[in-house]
Amino acid sequence: MTDQRRFPMARLELPRWLDEVLPDEETLFALDEDRMALVVELSRQNLERGTGGPFAAAVFERENGRLLAPGVNLVEPAHCSVAHAEMVALMVAQQMVGSFDLSLGDLPEFDLFASTEPCAMCFGAVPWSGIRRLVCGARKADAEAVGFDEGAKPEDWVGSLETRGIEVRRDVLRGPAAQVLRAYRDAGRTVYNPSRAISV
Amino acid sequence: MTDQRRFPMARLELPRWLDEVLPDEETLFALDEDRMALVVELSRQNLERGTGGPFAAAVFERENGRLLAPGVNLVEPAHCSVAHAEMVALMVAQQMVGSFDLSLGDLPEFDLFASTEPCAMCFGAVPWSGIRRLVCGARKADAEAVGFDEGAKPEDWVGSLETRGIEVRRDVLRGPAAQVLRAYRDAGRTVYNPSRAISV
Repeated sequence: MTDQRRFPMARLELPRWLDEVLPDEETLFALDEDRMALVVELSRQNLERGTGGPFAAAVFERENGRLLAPGVNLVEPAHCSVAHAEMVALMVAQQMVGSFDLSLGDLPEFDLFASTEPCAMCFGAVPWSGIRRLVCGARKADAEAVGFDEGAKPEDWVGSLETRGIEVRRDVLRGPAAQVLRAYRDAGRTVYNPSRAISV
Repeated sequence: MTDQRRFPMARLELPRWLDEVLPDEETLFALDEDRMALVVELSRQNLERGTGGPFAAAVFERENGRLLAPGVNLVEPAHCSVAHAEMVALMVAQQMVGSFDLSLGDLPEFDLFASTEPCAMCFGAVPWSGIRRLVCGARKADAEAVGFDEGAKPEDWVGSLETRGIEVRRDVLRGPAAQVLRAYRDAGRTVYNPSRAISV
């Protein structure tokens, strides 16, 4: 089947180095701090290997700490402004389980870990995904200090997730997570920013 | 190259019927109403052909009204909660131009048309995309009347886009757009809804 389609497919593929860097599939990440340490390490590797922005995320089984799906920012290499780390992790996780809904009855409960607090888009994506808990490293203020615009979230974004049955925990390894953001800036890499439209 | 990867790729491919239904590539859609009429028709076809939720979107060149990329909701068939119509249209548009930024200097200005006002996720995605104008059909209230939860947007979401240099126009063919939402409900199709987590 090589018939020509008028519009291209959008495809997001994790960088190959992830397969080498990740511990084997049996590894269990017991504590929130263990899970976040992996995510922060992926954000650092994504920076160092030049495969995208300094952001990573992952979906874990809450109970036993098994990694279901990692994600890294792929905006530049994939030519896709949607390809933030959280979005990539959620999309890959849903491919792994074969459903758009990670809260389906026979599945274990899943947590989303994000090296930096979600931007407005990723915040909005969380309730649709079936994730039951969100754990964040660096804060919006840390991303903005480096020059990223995280967009307009509702004032009480944490409360609005909790109202939808999604727990939120913040500031897990915030320091190390924020350090990766600063390293990205110090390396002189692209800080893409939608408010550039204003200064044009 | 058939080497095994540990994690699957996330891929979003437009349904084949789009190639048949769309007018040829030279067609220009002069008015906002012409552009929205196409988008509403795509939302109706997506419902009738059973290829996803009752939502469509498209990216047009603002000046001459050429269609750059269509999008339809693919959440269920693609196993992907991210695959709202607006997200699909933006992702395909970015593949068409080969950049994550639709506002690059040598590109024409692009508008995003959405058959229903964007949900919290799609709202958050707009500023990252390089789109310079957003035109909406049905309102959030129309989607909620049918049972969809559109998520938590900032109170002044229109103003927060305008602050970022993105114009917003609403209520273009709102009636016909809302009618497709009601037809979806009346057909007894899945109204997926993140607040289901509360009532479980």
